[in-house]
Amino acid sequence: MSKIRSISIVGTGNVAFHLGKALHASGWNIEHVYGRNAAEGKRLAALLNANYTEKIPELEADLIILCINDDAIQSLSQMIPAEKLVAHTSGSISLEALGDRSNKAVIYPLQTFSKEKETVFSKVPLLVEASNDALLHEIATLCGSLTEQVVCVSSDDRKKVHLNAVFINNFVNHLVFLSQELMNQQGLDWNLLKPLLRETVEKLDILDPLDAQTGPARRGDLHTIEAHSALLKGVHKEIYELFTRSIMKTYGQS
Amino acid sequence: MSKIRSISIVGTGNVAFHLGKALHASGWNIEHVYGRNAAEGKRLAALLNANYTEKIPELEADLIILCINDDAIQSLSQMIPAEKLVAHTSGSISLEALGDRSNKAVIYPLQTFSKEKETVFSKVPLLVEASNDALLHEIATLCGSLTEQVVCVSSDDRKKVHLNAVFINNFVNHLVFLSQELMNQQGLDWNLLKPLLRETVEKLDILDPLDAQTGPARRGDLHTIEAHSALLKGVHKEIYELFTRSIMKTYGQS
Repeated sequence: MSKIRSISIVGTGNVAFHLGKALHASGWNIEHVYGRNAAEGKRLAALLNANYTEKIPELEADLIILCINDDAIQSLSQMIPAEKLVAHTSGSISLEALGDRSNKAVIYPLQTFSKEKETVFSKVPLLVEASNDALLHEIATLCGSLTEQVVCVSSDDRKKVHLNAVFINNFVNHLVFLSQELMNQQGLDWNLLKPLLRETVEKLDILDPLDAQTGPARRGDLHTIEAHSALLKGVHKEIYELFTRSIMKTYGQS
Repeated sequence: MSKIRSISIVGTGNVAFHLGKALHASGWNIEHVYGRNAAEGKRLAALLNANYTEKIPELEADLIILCINDDAIQSLSQMIPAEKLVAHTSGSISLEALGDRSNKAVIYPLQTFSKEKETVFSKVPLLVEASNDALLHEIATLCGSLTEQVVCVSSDDRKKVHLNAVFINNFVNHLVFLSQELMNQQGLDWNLLKPLLRETVEKLDILDPLDAQTGPARRGDLHTIEAHSALLKGVHKEIYELFTRSIMKTYGQS
């Protein structure tokens, strides 16, 4: 297996954008950017001092990184010759989805990205996996040039971490959405709650969530719980009741 | 009604501690600290250059602030002469709980406090209410010396904000607890998810939660949802399924 000297990126979404920029900033040579969205592809290629291509067979590089939707990984990787080293960046897709090639890898950035927001990439954990030890070492070294935290994780464990990322990112975000919806319905300004949200998370730097828990469910304060429940309906009520039950059980209040 | 020149604090918990410190730092004269826990009461009194007392009738001050548990507010306020101005600091207890006195108020700090962690009090929203306009003005002025954000809110609206604080603080914290539990069960290190949690919240400075939402439920990716669900049981599974259903509904995926 040869050393990685050049990289091509497939995809023009948030991961392609941030991973590409981090690679470029760390001095890696980006050969090609491929994407169906030509405008975005050319924009990213320009940022990375790379060439944009519309043809997958033209992808030339020692490492081709797929930054694409989960359900496109298997079919797209089949279009890349088996002697090529290919990596994907998904949390929930196994290494094996990259097909019957001897050199394949996963580089999963455990972070949420948007093009509108800068990311300190050196703080993004990269979960890596590879089809053999020599390649794993090489991929880990490459990733170590981008971030402080590189962890070797199997496909099975990566799926479990991804499931937790759903709790921590998707569900926390949805709780905020539901609260915003509730405040709007009540004619109140959600922004009042922003300092509380920030502090809730910052507090976890010094306290375990088990010790940081407060509120009526933790105290077993049925009077407040009933008053809250009476103000709610639909999914807000369902979520209130499920969390209240779970917190009460955690603290032996039920 | 006379001007507020001195304040006494009832309670020695997190709110008494942080509100007391903020009042003292802003130059307010703290007369007494009362609390059943004498050691904590003396410690707080020393911090605030105040006197500790074990007797409620001894409380001398133009304003007596109750920083105590919700269920103690009504009974304790009955022990304070009706001519005294009394305020409580609870999100879910009405102004009327302070009894039949002409001057009563609420100062509700919309924040989570712990003695172990410093708070930038000037960023804590204070939700205020009072039994008459002149007093409301005076309480709002006092609070304006402590923080940038003072909002006049009725008892009914304050209860609704408090309910939202439960979503934003209690439930977000419990989601983190559940995820930590899950990672521990799986032999994985929860700290890997800390940068993601932090970014999830910071992202909401520039994006609405409706636009910030990502993940399998948002995409309607049933394949990943089924794989996740198969890894879960008990309350983790219930919460996964309820959030997934709610997110899918929000984005028209079901």
